[in-house]
Amino acid sequence: MADTNGLFNAEVFGKHNFDALDDIYTSDARILPPGAPTIAGRKAIKEFWSNMIQATGAKAAVLESVDAMLAGDGVVEIGRATLTIQDAAQIEVKYVVYWKQEDGRWKWHVDIWNTNA
Amino acid sequence: MADTNGLFNAEVFGKHNFDALDDIYTSDARILPPGAPTIAGRKAIKEFWSNMIQATGAKAAVLESVDAMLAGDGVVEIGRATLTIQDAAQIEVKYVVYWKQEDGRWKWHVDIWNTNA
Repeated sequence: MADTNGLFNAEVFGKHNFDALDDIYTSDARILPPGAPTIAGRKAIKEFWSNMIQATGAKAAVLESVDAMLAGDGVVEIGRATLTIQDAAQIEVKYVVYWKQEDGRWKWHVDIWNTNA
Repeated sequence: MADTNGLFNAEVFGKHNFDALDDIYTSDARILPPGAPTIAGRKAIKEFWSNMIQATGAKAAVLESVDAMLAGDGVVEIGRATLTIQDAAQIEVKYVVYWKQEDGRWKWHVDIWNTNA
């Protein structure tokens, strides 16, 4: 699971490699972003992150797991993230991810977050 | 689980009966509110809702389940809520709740939400 979180920072935010999201989200994942309706399906999720990262000039998303609770064949994770956007400004975020396995990889099946301030 | 969601609206928002939160949240629940850090433990959660409801004059929180996924001995729920605050203004919210059983009741163990706009 640290692999998945690392990919999000290094590939998606660092290199704008949005195809790495295939290894991060399940095909029928849902994200619940602040300030927008729920987005369903990996294709739409890839568009969301592509637009968001390009619009904000985001450069990094460092994720830190706070707690991970085994939940059947999935895991419920509480975490915090630090997003670095334009001019090195940082935004503190907290999140809950419901992880499921797909094709032998742990991926995000439900992903919701909000800001601390 | 509809019982629990109904209590939240009728008792907590409708009657300011904050002790009803004993039947809604597990004793070691965590909430992740927008604009504030994570709050851990039912006692602190009761203070949060008491302060929030009295500060905003909130009168109703109508919850609607969008999806509920069995996750071991818990459930991961995606839902939407309509909060009615002062002067009948309404706020649309979406949420993820990780449900667990405690003392034979289904309760919210992790609760995170954000607004759509």
